[in-house]
Amino acid sequence: MLHLPVHAARPNILFILADDLGWQDTSVDFGPSRTALSAHYRTPAIERLAKEGAKFTQAYSCAVCSPARVSFMTGLNEARHGVTNWLFRGGSAPTTDLLHPTLSPAAWNWNGLQPGPGLAASVSRPVLPALLQKAGYRTMMFGKGHLGAAGTPGADPKLLGFDVRVGGRANGGPASYRGTKNFGSLNRPDDPNRVWDLDSYWGQDIHLTEALTREAAREIRVAVAAGTPFFCYFAHYAPHMPIEPDERFAPQYRAAGLDQNESAYASLIAGMDKSVGDLLALLDELGIADNTIVVFTSDNGALTHRGRTMEQPFTHNAPLSSGKGSHREGGIRVPLVVRWPGLVRPGTVSTTPVILYDWMPTLLEIAGGKTPPDLDGVSLVPLLREPAAVLADRALIWHFPNFFGPLEAKVPVQGPGMGPSSTIRHGDWKLICYYTDNRFELFNLAGDLGETRNLAEREPGRVRALANELTAYLRKYHAPMPVVKATSKPVPYPAEALAAVAR
Amino acid sequence: MLHLPVHAARPNILFILADDLGWQDTSVDFGPSRTALSAHYRTPAIERLAKEGAKFTQAYSCAVCSPARVSFMTGLNEARHGVTNWLFRGGSAPTTDLLHPTLSPAAWNWNGLQPGPGLAASVSRPVLPALLQKAGYRTMMFGKGHLGAAGTPGADPKLLGFDVRVGGRANGGPASYRGTKNFGSLNRPDDPNRVWDLDSYWGQDIHLTEALTREAAREIRVAVAAGTPFFCYFAHYAPHMPIEPDERFAPQYRAAGLDQNESAYASLIAGMDKSVGDLLALLDELGIADNTIVVFTSDNGALTHRGRTMEQPFTHNAPLSSGKGSHREGGIRVPLVVRWPGLVRPGTVSTTPVILYDWMPTLLEIAGGKTPPDLDGVSLVPLLREPAAVLADRALIWHFPNFFGPLEAKVPVQGPGMGPSSTIRHGDWKLICYYTDNRFELFNLAGDLGETRNLAEREPGRVRALANELTAYLRKYHAPMPVVKATSKPVPYPAEALAAVAR
Repeated sequence: MLHLPVHAARPNILFILADDLGWQDTSVDFGPSRTALSAHYRTPAIERLAKEGAKFTQAYSCAVCSPARVSFMTGLNEARHGVTNWLFRGGSAPTTDLLHPTLSPAAWNWNGLQPGPGLAASVSRPVLPALLQKAGYRTMMFGKGHLGAAGTPGADPKLLGFDVRVGGRANGGPASYRGTKNFGSLNRPDDPNRVWDLDSYWGQDIHLTEALTREAAREIRVAVAAGTPFFCYFAHYAPHMPIEPDERFAPQYRAAGLDQNESAYASLIAGMDKSVGDLLALLDELGIADNTIVVFTSDNGALTHRGRTMEQPFTHNAPLSSGKGSHREGGIRVPLVVRWPGLVRPGTVSTTPVILYDWMPTLLEIAGGKTPPDLDGVSLVPLLREPAAVLADRALIWHFPNFFGPLEAKVPVQGPGMGPSSTIRHGDWKLICYYTDNRFELFNLAGDLGETRNLAEREPGRVRALANELTAYLRKYHAPMPVVKATSKPVPYPAEALAAVAR
Repeated sequence: MLHLPVHAARPNILFILADDLGWQDTSVDFGPSRTALSAHYRTPAIERLAKEGAKFTQAYSCAVCSPARVSFMTGLNEARHGVTNWLFRGGSAPTTDLLHPTLSPAAWNWNGLQPGPGLAASVSRPVLPALLQKAGYRTMMFGKGHLGAAGTPGADPKLLGFDVRVGGRANGGPASYRGTKNFGSLNRPDDPNRVWDLDSYWGQDIHLTEALTREAAREIRVAVAAGTPFFCYFAHYAPHMPIEPDERFAPQYRAAGLDQNESAYASLIAGMDKSVGDLLALLDELGIADNTIVVFTSDNGALTHRGRTMEQPFTHNAPLSSGKGSHREGGIRVPLVVRWPGLVRPGTVSTTPVILYDWMPTLLEIAGGKTPPDLDGVSLVPLLREPAAVLADRALIWHFPNFFGPLEAKVPVQGPGMGPSSTIRHGDWKLICYYTDNRFELFNLAGDLGETRNLAEREPGRVRALANELTAYLRKYHAPMPVVKATSKPVPYPAEALAAVAR
């Protein structure tokens, strides 16, 4: 049971999730030292959060967005809820997985998260907003949904337990960030990526991030006036593609020498930081900062292809390797800061590995809601209270039986850590198992954050132990697996592949 | 424009659709003479309707249920709305079409009718209830939905424009007709065929037809009390499988010598007729019989396999050939009676071929609603006014690029007129084109109601003309066509197949 100071009971929850924001994409240092990348960006509001709260240097999410978001909603690993790749059009098998010459797509849940059973290739489980609603919270979301595929009931977050929903449907990115383009509805009213619910801003010279922030501020005021604790899920579209410059902030980055594209990217981050600052100021104004837990994090690592323009490819999360869509650290490690005067001591740092879906049971515990049994996520309350607390021993697992790439791609994106794979981290050891060629990578993150030295051949015992632990989990929950075209059978589990190599 | 007597303006609409009720399954004579079958059944209420209104002896629907129902809602032929087979589980390709050795399934809309775009394999068009709602009607449905596949938005008729919905979701039949079995929820709360919304009758010794009738009666009273014209769509589950006896009526049929199964079937019809009678009595009691149009019809022919027990197979619609799932008359010709004191003269008979989706524009005209342009259905108001009126010349077309059979079937149902096919009737001539073997059947219905003499070889000119007319329609609207497995190409259109044979 959680014993909180009285003034911290049933706090408001402001959960801010950035989209495709990398581990080094803020001016908060999450790494062992200041990096060239984090020196690029100026995010004073996120810095303020870290200073007044705790930062987590080993926080994780999934390698792509929909799995991360469905995990956040359900408290489950993607291998269990089955939404292993990003969602788009509902109601039929996806095309993004059809690119490989030897593997057929896994039977993943490409219709996404749904409010009830009945739809094939979908998952229906107790979800965070509905459970908080039951616990007496007013639940509201602003920004990106991407939880259920287009045309399905789950495409509308309202059906998943949000009292208020602004901007979120099935789309995974905004057709445009610009009010002058009606956020994508101007030239094509039925653009599948248009942002909904913001008609009142159409034609105005306003940025999407700003419009969503104003909407959230209004609704927070409503909830506070009503005396109801609120759960505000602010799921920024920024800095996801399209990388359109936010002209309020782009000039300063261009002046600092960033090229057209990277300055635009930085400006999207700066606009997001301004939004965070505005909401913190609002909490101050309303006198609820002490009784509001504020979480800031991201859904996966920064994009390392298409539209990014660093000199070296796959360096956009340096010192981490690779980026979005990869099981290397650059794809899955994310910024995380938490401020909650009720429990979290200012300026603390936690180095314990945590993962996005831990927040589901954490927030339910804090809110006095009912936590479903048998989740993958665990409550982080002990770490919030004491950063040096020791959580029960566990492995973290990632599962991506898919190919990563845009709909129109002819070949999947190729980069370090990419391709159909399952991954396990236990202690400082991390094993990536690739299904296309039954290859293994073993890294020791304590000494090799950049994952440059594959120790698989040198440490066969560790490989075997991790492969066994990973396989037991995948088996237990019937994780969707890629299928070998030649045999129509699933690929071998990591432990099986290893045994075959050993023979 | 419709010029009605003042008292007939904006009449109430009671549209009663039976499920799988054959052309000879009432005691009303629709054929040239009294038949053995129609002598079996006693349906005094439907007889009353025919006596006080008009009967149509050449009324049609589709060969299976979902296409018929979606056509009724949209005014479109199934080749155009693309819901060509019955719906069940949504979100993935259906299994019922995978049975054939040489043909792959057509890309039909197996997610069904939807309230908006976005879902693959679905159709979204202006629908009758929403248009009547806009015209100021209170719209309500009782009984079977079966318009959108399970788990999709269209599975709930409320999202298609019904103010009130009792009993209808994605299911195509009831798990049970018995209140004592909670209409299917007793042993399996999530039975996909359970009937919803009737919890208050659970455990009672009440028949589903009776429960739905009481619900409809209550809501009709509500609408009348509110002074709002109503559209009551009463979509009986009866006499669809499971053929459970209605013990209020089964004994009399057993006493008359029908076997266990056929007496149960007859009892389901008798229960449905009792419901019709109860609703007619209610209209009398409320004093609205003069200003209510009552339509009674069915969605396809009677079942001729699984659970039916006539001595000869495929005789359950005699003198018509075959039954549900077939393009022979037994599959598509249905009972139709209409009573409307405002316009229809009592006891009249119309022999003009009409089809279920004609009612969409007909009812919109009567209600003063807005009829969408370019429908396949035409208004029947001229025929209601004067049974001998001549409608504009037209062909009727049926399109079934599927295989008919239950989910668990290993082979499709085989019978006369069954299998992937398209069919056209123009005047008294009817051409059935089979896609599995490019076979043609030509019948002259005027002299051969039972479709016993295939005149295709004797009348090549008629075959060609009809095949051309049919092909032009299928081409124009991109009708979904079966695909030849060997070539991955669609089967040839009827005119093409014919040309190939001629070479």
